[in-house]
Amino acid sequence: MEVKKYVYSFEEGDGKNKKLLGGKGANLCEMTQLGLAVPPGFVITTEACLAYLAQHKKGLGPELAQLIRSSMAQLEKKTDKGFGDPKEPLLVSVRSGAAMSMPGMMDTILNLGLNGDTVEGLIRLTGDERFVYDLYRRLIQLFASIALGMDDQEFVQIFGRIKEEYGAKEDIDLDGKALKETCDKFLGLVKENTGEPFPDDPYVQLDLAVEAVFRSWMGKRAVDYRKEFNITTDMADGTAVNICTMVFGNMGNNCATGVAFTRDPATGENRFFGEYMLNAQGEDVVAGIRTPKPIGDLRKDMPEIYRELEDLRHTLEDHYQEVQDLEFTVEKGKLYCLQTRNAKMNASALIKTSIDMVNEGLITEEEAILRVQPGMLEQLLHPQLDPEAKVKVLARGLAASPGAASGKIVFDADRAEGKAKLGEKVILLREETRPEDIHGFFAAQGILTSRGGKTSHAAVVARSVGKPCVSGCEAIVIDHNAREAVISGVILKEGDVITIDGSTGNVYHGKVPTIEPEFVEDLLVLLEWADDMSELKVMANADTPDAVSKGKKYGAVGIGLCRTERMFNQPDRLPIVQEMILADDSKERQAVLDRLLPFQREDFKEIFQIMDGYPVIIRLLDPPIHEFLPSEEELTREINDLKELQKTIEGMTELPNTLKMLDPELHDRYLANLENMTQGLSALKERHLTGPLIESREELVEKVRALSETNPMMGHRGVRLGITYPEIYSMQIRAVFEAAAEHIRDGGQITPEIMVPQVCTLEELKWVHRYVTKIHKKVEKEYGIKVPYKFGTMIEVVRACMRAGRIAELAEFISFGTNDLTQATFSFSREDAENKFLPLYNKNRILQHNPFEVLDIKGVGRLMMITMEWARKTRPHMSVGICGEQGGYPDSIRFCHHVNMSYVSCSPPRVPIARLAAAHAKLKEAEYSLD
Amino acid sequence: MEVKKYVYSFEEGDGKNKKLLGGKGANLCEMTQLGLAVPPGFVITTEACLAYLAQHKKGLGPELAQLIRSSMAQLEKKTDKGFGDPKEPLLVSVRSGAAMSMPGMMDTILNLGLNGDTVEGLIRLTGDERFVYDLYRRLIQLFASIALGMDDQEFVQIFGRIKEEYGAKEDIDLDGKALKETCDKFLGLVKENTGEPFPDDPYVQLDLAVEAVFRSWMGKRAVDYRKEFNITTDMADGTAVNICTMVFGNMGNNCATGVAFTRDPATGENRFFGEYMLNAQGEDVVAGIRTPKPIGDLRKDMPEIYRELEDLRHTLEDHYQEVQDLEFTVEKGKLYCLQTRNAKMNASALIKTSIDMVNEGLITEEEAILRVQPGMLEQLLHPQLDPEAKVKVLARGLAASPGAASGKIVFDADRAEGKAKLGEKVILLREETRPEDIHGFFAAQGILTSRGGKTSHAAVVARSVGKPCVSGCEAIVIDHNAREAVISGVILKEGDVITIDGSTGNVYHGKVPTIEPEFVEDLLVLLEWADDMSELKVMANADTPDAVSKGKKYGAVGIGLCRTERMFNQPDRLPIVQEMILADDSKERQAVLDRLLPFQREDFKEIFQIMDGYPVIIRLLDPPIHEFLPSEEELTREINDLKELQKTIEGMTELPNTLKMLDPELHDRYLANLENMTQGLSALKERHLTGPLIESREELVEKVRALSETNPMMGHRGVRLGITYPEIYSMQIRAVFEAAAEHIRDGGQITPEIMVPQVCTLEELKWVHRYVTKIHKKVEKEYGIKVPYKFGTMIEVVRACMRAGRIAELAEFISFGTNDLTQATFSFSREDAENKFLPLYNKNRILQHNPFEVLDIKGVGRLMMITMEWARKTRPHMSVGICGEQGGYPDSIRFCHHVNMSYVSCSPPRVPIARLAAAHAKLKEAEYSLD
Repeated sequence: MEVKKYVYSFEEGDGKNKKLLGGKGANLCEMTQLGLAVPPGFVITTEACLAYLAQHKKGLGPELAQLIRSSMAQLEKKTDKGFGDPKEPLLVSVRSGAAMSMPGMMDTILNLGLNGDTVEGLIRLTGDERFVYDLYRRLIQLFASIALGMDDQEFVQIFGRIKEEYGAKEDIDLDGKALKETCDKFLGLVKENTGEPFPDDPYVQLDLAVEAVFRSWMGKRAVDYRKEFNITTDMADGTAVNICTMVFGNMGNNCATGVAFTRDPATGENRFFGEYMLNAQGEDVVAGIRTPKPIGDLRKDMPEIYRELEDLRHTLEDHYQEVQDLEFTVEKGKLYCLQTRNAKMNASALIKTSIDMVNEGLITEEEAILRVQPGMLEQLLHPQLDPEAKVKVLARGLAASPGAASGKIVFDADRAEGKAKLGEKVILLREETRPEDIHGFFAAQGILTSRGGKTSHAAVVARSVGKPCVSGCEAIVIDHNAREAVISGVILKEGDVITIDGSTGNVYHGKVPTIEPEFVEDLLVLLEWADDMSELKVMANADTPDAVSKGKKYGAVGIGLCRTERMFNQPDRLPIVQEMILADDSKERQAVLDRLLPFQREDFKEIFQIMDGYPVIIRLLDPPIHEFLPSEEELTREINDLKELQKTIEGMTELPNTLKMLDPELHDRYLANLENMTQGLSALKERHLTGPLIESREELVEKVRALSETNPMMGHRGVRLGITYPEIYSMQIRAVFEAAAEHIRDGGQITPEIMVPQVCTLEELKWVHRYVTKIHKKVEKEYGIKVPYKFGTMIEVVRACMRAGRIAELAEFISFGTNDLTQATFSFSREDAENKFLPLYNKNRILQHNPFEVLDIKGVGRLMMITMEWARKTRPHMSVGICGEQGGYPDSIRFCHHVNMSYVSCSPPRVPIARLAAAHAKLKEAEYSLD
Repeated sequence: MEVKKYVYSFEEGDGKNKKLLGGKGANLCEMTQLGLAVPPGFVITTEACLAYLAQHKKGLGPELAQLIRSSMAQLEKKTDKGFGDPKEPLLVSVRSGAAMSMPGMMDTILNLGLNGDTVEGLIRLTGDERFVYDLYRRLIQLFASIALGMDDQEFVQIFGRIKEEYGAKEDIDLDGKALKETCDKFLGLVKENTGEPFPDDPYVQLDLAVEAVFRSWMGKRAVDYRKEFNITTDMADGTAVNICTMVFGNMGNNCATGVAFTRDPATGENRFFGEYMLNAQGEDVVAGIRTPKPIGDLRKDMPEIYRELEDLRHTLEDHYQEVQDLEFTVEKGKLYCLQTRNAKMNASALIKTSIDMVNEGLITEEEAILRVQPGMLEQLLHPQLDPEAKVKVLARGLAASPGAASGKIVFDADRAEGKAKLGEKVILLREETRPEDIHGFFAAQGILTSRGGKTSHAAVVARSVGKPCVSGCEAIVIDHNAREAVISGVILKEGDVITIDGSTGNVYHGKVPTIEPEFVEDLLVLLEWADDMSELKVMANADTPDAVSKGKKYGAVGIGLCRTERMFNQPDRLPIVQEMILADDSKERQAVLDRLLPFQREDFKEIFQIMDGYPVIIRLLDPPIHEFLPSEEELTREINDLKELQKTIEGMTELPNTLKMLDPELHDRYLANLENMTQGLSALKERHLTGPLIESREELVEKVRALSETNPMMGHRGVRLGITYPEIYSMQIRAVFEAAAEHIRDGGQITPEIMVPQVCTLEELKWVHRYVTKIHKKVEKEYGIKVPYKFGTMIEVVRACMRAGRIAELAEFISFGTNDLTQATFSFSREDAENKFLPLYNKNRILQHNPFEVLDIKGVGRLMMITMEWARKTRPHMSVGICGEQGGYPDSIRFCHHVNMSYVSCSPPRVPIARLAAAHAKLKEAEYSLD
């Protein structure tokens, strides 16, 4: 067996080896070795954690326990204190720290080493009973809930009752006596719950605490977090444990504790940013239990310390070349740096700091690009409140995570998750959030808390998941039992709608209109750098002139997919489309199509004007035509309603008038009913457009039934329609060429690319190509203008993949329609799969992802690679792209770059993400592998 | 330009070069060179035909016309006659003949060279006016309809009227005067129709006739035939034209004409078989216009000729080593052999003659095997009349093509086709059939004619397409105008049902029950030879003990696909299955499944007993479970009916009794209605099983709606169900193992193979494998018996193909489900495609075949090859099979052999075909190529 070194002192650990020491541990080592004032301590490695977890039994085992003891002995030497020694008691903290930062995901226990004896000793030493019992009650509560698995709420309730008894508003208002009473009650609770007294032996405390941290790696919270952020064992496996000498920010008014960022993590501004509390422990800041002061106030409170902090700030940034998030404590006038890590920032702050650092000469453009994960840009695409909306602010809190969101109030994370699954938009409203609320963050549109600052749990997590958050909105009082909250005097029940603006901290009653986000200048700079680095082009999927404009604005260098059917679905066109479908023969159909043609031509023309000089790929009609008709069910219900009404009305009017004389009451009832029904009939008639009410509907039902299909996804659609109803495609092709001719005549430049959907064999392409060449010739002649064009196909049918070598004989370009191709490859109908079995499949890891969101590289991707190989054997350097939904997702883009595609096309708001992802793909191509 | 030799005399043509000379021409050359008495002549090649067709204009062109002229000059020399010479007129026939025999598909014109002058000359020479005008009227009629494109029926009508006028029953009863009148009328008709006189110049006749034959290659009849029989241009391209000196079987009573087979083509018996007519032309025999005499009678009529014919029979068989179908003519006591070709025979006759020839030492077993096309065996699978059925024969005709069939009478081929398209079974009833009726043969269940022998057009074509045929049933009189027929005095209208038995010649009124065909001894011999030669194993798809027995009887060496859901669909089980589906939780579901288990176990046990020692592959539940429930539509309709009734009844009973006194008539009407409705409600109640009438249906509708899917083919089915409802698969797996344990306990041998459907990833297989191993362990323990088994998967989802390398880590065997795989590869839903666009696709040759019938080798096949390659990289020598419908079709089997599959599995009746096809695949593997 290999003998591993499981423990490293801060002086000896390798600051680069995060995998072994965890991010926090490596940093503590690095900081120590940098000469910063880090309290002495040591790290137990992630390997020790894995070894512990692998053995599947309780207890650290004698070897590790022994290693810890000897490290503690060294610590005793360095600090000149003794662990469990009442004369000069050494207290330590135990903190988890994995290779990847997982904020709030894992556990920390403070003040280990306290027991009856050392409490007495420490009181003797400091003369401060209040301070010592405060430490002790924290130890008991944290240890009990983390190491002994007790319910934290019971401690909170006891503490709450004591504060009430003593008339204390804040923790700090409690005196030593009250805190002693708290400790006694806490110790009683532990005894009562576990059947055993709270452990007095400091080493028992320490061993159990280390074990609890090890175990927390496989706890639900941590596992969920890793799942959500796709943290694999390659990236982080096991947690290290950091054991560090305690220093105290709560030993009097020359003490303080705080967190700080070397730059403002919300805006990216290059200014020192942070919060602190005098006479408090670090947990008070992080958990947001008390509202702290801004760091600037420290200049007044402790001017010397503030200067030291400023120095620390610059030392750290020079060393790490990233914005740092640090924790500090001032113990009796001495500053300690407890922790530093790369700051979590929202996208715009990260972009700003990265660009600033390039300008400051700290990092390169490539480094700046790689620092911004493409997915983060989604935050920048979050809607903002419409500034035109005239709304009154209900309350004001802290602007903790930018963006605006509306939703129904819910008071706990479980309910947030439940309602979100039903498709409801919710805002999670809590006093403060805790790590076990993480699923509520994923489910909610935004988070609102009544307590806690900008570095509270709620704020940090919300920023990292890109959700809007308003924290510390003290105007809120929550009544959990009644499931209601009073906000500035207004009573809001669970389910009532509010709006929060995480960029201003404002809270509004009801839904406030939002607007699309505007591009920040910094992002433009970053994306231009990105474009220079990447090989893959980014185009937009856009069907209307509006969407096309948006795509262009977001930097798309062409339209990769213009779905012509979307143009059919507009209110002025749908009736014509329906008429076309109902046409009895191709002549009648042609006549209707002639009326549709100008609409399509004008759309295309507008699009060509916007995209002048850029490629525009136009896909011919794809969905089954019955999609443009009402459903059979809908029509049948209407017909039945109509018939029933008519029949009843007829039956009733048959009633003899004489009934009135015989039984006036019955007669009146009849008349009232009759009136009701006649009104119903009129209402139905209003909803109807033309022709006799029932008969025309029955005709329509017949048509709908004739067009209905068992599996419409695999039915009469795409090129199959184009071949059976040649007049439809002909109209579309003509509209494209006429629009292009007019655009060119007006001095523009355009080479429209006609793309045929659902192709499974070269013959289909040939068929359509015949129309195309014929119509092209005619239009060129009619306009007297040369119209260049390209002809290609979607690849979304598996057979087309198999025939790619032949198809490439005629197709000048191909575009993978990965939505349909994924359906065909998996034989999953998206609608059915996502409702019925896919969630279970993902939950049970039968499939790692939903393949409709994340391109399935092992299956669909492999098929695409084969296809490209065959296609480019026939037509080398053929333009190949992807226009499915996955085309806007970084992992898929990385794959597309790797297999040498020409472009990706995605929805306009994803274009910036794709541009950045394309640069990442290029910069990181050496690391990529397909297993 | 290459100069080609377009014309070959019979003495110089290469008898093996059918591609160039056509089958008939090559044979004439071969026969001539063998020294048989073939009338002199020459062949115009298929290349000449193609060159003619390629030029797209009228006229043979001067080069070809010149070649024909010089060949005719040689003919004049050989026969000592002159073409158009009144003194010694040379008459010739012009016949088409392609590389592949296409009986009756193309055209023949006789007696070219006759005109006013030569008619006179020939009368002078023969002194037989009747004979000469008979020749002339035939020439005019054939030439007019074939070369001039006139309607043949007008000639038939004129001729009919003349026969009536002259009181003639048969053609032969007409004298020279009558025939001269016929010729005059015919000539008049030609003038009237074409505006020009019938061409007198023999070379004009000849050139036009050759051109007409060339054109007939692209005529609808020929094109349809080639399409039906998949004759590609590789196999036959263009038709040759045979120009042959006329000899006459109608120059008096020392003349005769006939056709003969060297063995009986209906039974295969080794006896001379044929028919002849004295004093007649060949067309009279072939077209079935007169009923001929059996060949045996010739022994009496012309003993010397009969001996010569017997010699000819043996010479031909020794030379060709195949049964020959020959035409002969006796001209004034001299026997001429006009044509010989390989005889078309039904399957059982072909098998018998092939086996006999092996025994006679003429051919090898391999040759015998290759002589029988696997598809032909389908004929042997045609139903026969139940001998137990007590039915009276309505009429008797000739047993022209074996097998029995029932159907509605139709009187023409178009109507046969029309009704067949609507799914009706029809019998085509005609006086006689003609080449243009070919689509009627494909559409009808069987053919019945009132005239013509066993070598008539109807008989030959029916045999070649494997349809039952009764010919020459003279008891039938057809009235086309009334669309009825009198058969033995019974009037039958179009649409009335009759039954024909082509094996006995009997005709029955109404539908007669049929039974499955029994295996003929000869076939068993042949299939045993086949099994010895082939590498691919043949298994059966069978779900019930009955079907399994049948598969075994047909020689399946295992069950390749046992679909367990078919067992669910039986009337005693379906209600339990429905109950299972409606179960509210898995506990309730388990309880219902416990009741289903014994059914499945007993089925499996019975199957294992039948297949003792052979492999049995059991597929776990595959279809979506809502397939076992009534449709939402059906239920909703019922509920609406119920509600309406209840409401109306309630409404009516509310009517005051006093109404009776006021308006007795209205009251009575109400009462009558009420009665009606109450009855309706009772009827509905009867159809209902348990619980309250409307409510339980509404519950069911909810359930059905919840289970309904947009694209059920790609929905919640197969292993997806198995994973979401583990108790269903668990029950099935337990039933398999229990049945196996019991079978082994009873002394049997079985290794059940469990197959998982719809798999797309290895993880799914792992999931099911966990149940399998757990249940297997339990059952072995419960029974105290070792149960061997295998575990594998269907490959029917494209992603499984892409992941085959991983899937093969766990799957011990794979079986391609080509039905679903074809749907997935094409993104065609079979039901939708076959109804909506596939016929158009096939018609326009966008797809050559319906891929659900013929395995799409270029797409689906390519995917299968990739899959096998990957799978066998992981698990070399892995058992791989195919169990889709295509697995029973020779082309697909050939592919399966070529790509080295282990087995094919098909429906029991196709097992013999597959066995033969497997042998063919092996014997012809050298010729196979995938392009």
